[in-house]
Amino acid sequence: MDTQILKGDILAEKLLQLVSKKIEEFKEATSTTPGLGILAIGEFEGGKSYRQAIEKLCKEIEIYLEIKILPSFISLREAIEELEIFNASPNINGILIEMPLPANFPEKDFLLHLSPQKDVDCLSLLNRGKFALDSFSVISPCTPLAVYCLLIEYGIRLKGSHLVIVGRSNIVGKPLALLMLRKGIDATVTVCHSKTPHLEQFTSQADILVVAVNSPRLITSSMIKEGAVVIDVGINKIFDSKLGKDIIVGDVDFEDVMGKASAITPVPGGVGSLTRVLLIKNTLKLAYLQRGLEDETFLLS
Amino acid sequence: MDTQILKGDILAEKLLQLVSKKIEEFKEATSTTPGLGILAIGEFEGGKSYRQAIEKLCKEIEIYLEIKILPSFISLREAIEELEIFNASPNINGILIEMPLPANFPEKDFLLHLSPQKDVDCLSLLNRGKFALDSFSVISPCTPLAVYCLLIEYGIRLKGSHLVIVGRSNIVGKPLALLMLRKGIDATVTVCHSKTPHLEQFTSQADILVVAVNSPRLITSSMIKEGAVVIDVGINKIFDSKLGKDIIVGDVDFEDVMGKASAITPVPGGVGSLTRVLLIKNTLKLAYLQRGLEDETFLLS
Repeated sequence: MDTQILKGDILAEKLLQLVSKKIEEFKEATSTTPGLGILAIGEFEGGKSYRQAIEKLCKEIEIYLEIKILPSFISLREAIEELEIFNASPNINGILIEMPLPANFPEKDFLLHLSPQKDVDCLSLLNRGKFALDSFSVISPCTPLAVYCLLIEYGIRLKGSHLVIVGRSNIVGKPLALLMLRKGIDATVTVCHSKTPHLEQFTSQADILVVAVNSPRLITSSMIKEGAVVIDVGINKIFDSKLGKDIIVGDVDFEDVMGKASAITPVPGGVGSLTRVLLIKNTLKLAYLQRGLEDETFLLS
Repeated sequence: MDTQILKGDILAEKLLQLVSKKIEEFKEATSTTPGLGILAIGEFEGGKSYRQAIEKLCKEIEIYLEIKILPSFISLREAIEELEIFNASPNINGILIEMPLPANFPEKDFLLHLSPQKDVDCLSLLNRGKFALDSFSVISPCTPLAVYCLLIEYGIRLKGSHLVIVGRSNIVGKPLALLMLRKGIDATVTVCHSKTPHLEQFTSQADILVVAVNSPRLITSSMIKEGAVVIDVGINKIFDSKLGKDIIVGDVDFEDVMGKASAITPVPGGVGSLTRVLLIKNTLKLAYLQRGLEDETFLLS
């Protein structure tokens, strides 16, 4: 079977052109520059490379970026103080809190203080509540939205499909399940995770398989159905002994599933590229809303 | 195979005794009576019988109950005004909004005004957001909690099990999926719904099957796996031609699956009985919290 490559980077580039145009319009209309604030507590490899990619993007399209990396041992009170500075800053329209937060950090108590008006990844309690109750009117989490946009762009049928998600995180697995269950989208959804026994029994039933566990090359051809669409959300740095250097791979063994899957996203160049541009798009959407400006056709796309 | 009957009503009775004792303690400590407010917009059959059952229960354990039935054509503004009266009333500790609201009623705009401190079924945006992000510290939605309690009471293993839910409502299907995916519970979860083709392909794979679509006797023995645990959340009034009168049946053909399922909840006397008592328990929990009183052992149970 010919396996189609779902080129997230090409879709991202198309969307970025639209976003760039809207940024220019925003700058002209308001004489201000949209701004994104990233707040990280502690450092980890994946977070660092994601931040660098966003930094590059913000430079390219000329939006304001502020990055705060707080020490992993920071107290809740101090972390909230730093977050409140972003909440209050007129230069910041969107705030991204890097997930996951350190183990044992009181996540919900912290997210309670994230301004819903500046919440670019649907992590504030109010926005997540709306999203969980099925509202289309708010910011959607960027990665689930990227997966959805990619599937729609390539004309992959969701209604009546069986979508299997591997991973139950708050930024991919769970919100993606909620999104795909929405009326009108109508997928049937299975969520597996690290404690699922016989994972292959579930993955092999997927019409559409989405993998988001950051486990390098976890999914091999024997674990998927002939003709499945495979969406790889994982980003893992591993040492390639043949090349003698570190390389980036996904959660899917790309070479192995080629020829069996009907379509697959590459890593890099797949979901991640699109996620970053949607993050900028969400920032811009919030900037418009904060100004009381609206552009329905763009904002809802 | 002998099919065990999971007696929700017996568990409910046990829990009610505990709750009654706590109500007495609350009354003594505060010289006030805990109060529940039910707000319905429009009337439908299922809502009415649920309300009557709660009314009976509130009389029995002597807690204050106020029921407001608003016309189905009420405006959002007027409905919010009525809700705000409950929010402000010192007699009301818990508020239950009857779901589903009429079609086209702006649900999220309405629920935005439900006080999180009085939200007895986890429908306020803030509490639902916390719940969606995995917090154990808030009120859980009553029906998913009832399903969970029943399974735990009867020692049914959740970790590693495949739980299949039929129904994707905001009061059962979606929150139950989120609950069962929690770390420590660790079920693998599939959510099916009215648009799922070949439903039997999914239901027949369930170790635990939960049905919540209000479709009388939808699930028959050919649709379940030998030894499956079947949880029937449906409540349907149908005319029985043999008996010549209306009877209440669930979403599962009880007689048909007997002998094939390893366990099943009856309707009535199953999940619904327990849900009602959990509603009272949540009301009391909120009453304690509003007074700044806590009883950890009871509140977290």
